[in-house]
Amino acid sequence: MRKRLQHARVGRLATVTPQGAPHVVPCCFAVDDETIYSAVDGKPKSTLALRRLDNIRALPQASLVVDHYSDDWTELWWVRMDGRGRVIESGDERDHALRLLAEKYEQYIKDPPPGPVIAIDITAWRAWP
Amino acid sequence: MRKRLQHARVGRLATVTPQGAPHVVPCCFAVDDETIYSAVDGKPKSTLALRRLDNIRALPQASLVVDHYSDDWTELWWVRMDGRGRVIESGDERDHALRLLAEKYEQYIKDPPPGPVIAIDITAWRAWP
Repeated sequence: MRKRLQHARVGRLATVTPQGAPHVVPCCFAVDDETIYSAVDGKPKSTLALRRLDNIRALPQASLVVDHYSDDWTELWWVRMDGRGRVIESGDERDHALRLLAEKYEQYIKDPPPGPVIAIDITAWRAWP
Repeated sequence: MRKRLQHARVGRLATVTPQGAPHVVPCCFAVDDETIYSAVDGKPKSTLALRRLDNIRALPQASLVVDHYSDDWTELWWVRMDGRGRVIESGDERDHALRLLAEKYEQYIKDPPPGPVIAIDITAWRAWP
């Protein structure tokens, strides 16, 4: 599972709105032991970027799925991590997360994400098949 | 948006568990006007396959994101459809959905999904960028 995650470039993060509806967005991520980190890219003040932050602040439950699609369905797989999200505005853990993300995505070296970082402390791993 | 959806092979479906937690899985899908159809592949009695059905039966809100990832971040895009899910066990609409899915995925011609079909009546479209 961890090897697949290391090579995966994108995951899809699901949260729940304060009204109780599901919300899902693609996102870049890095996994550090039992914590997932993800930055809010660009335009940090846009409504779209803030939605997932507001959701996590209201209800910390979050779920990230990382999967591989192929038209050869014998090659399909997914890994899902459920956990509790935190929004990190500043400080050492945010710096640490941005270093991990920059190691994985060189785009972040040139253009460090200006906004908060989302941390998800994993409480359950699921994998298929 | 519709052209991108037509060519996309996989989406990620988010629902909410009866306990209020987000749940997200990759899935094949077909869009017919303002309704998304998705089948529960294989092992219809497995816990994993049933989870999303149980969620929709308890809380119909569902969200499907379809996106494109590239390491050239100028090429990123996503389309998200929020709506109300229904679980269709049998009947004309299920047959219609399975025809649409088989037109898109030839795997379904040889091996028609034996279980229920999920229909999501779209209430909101979002796209980025």
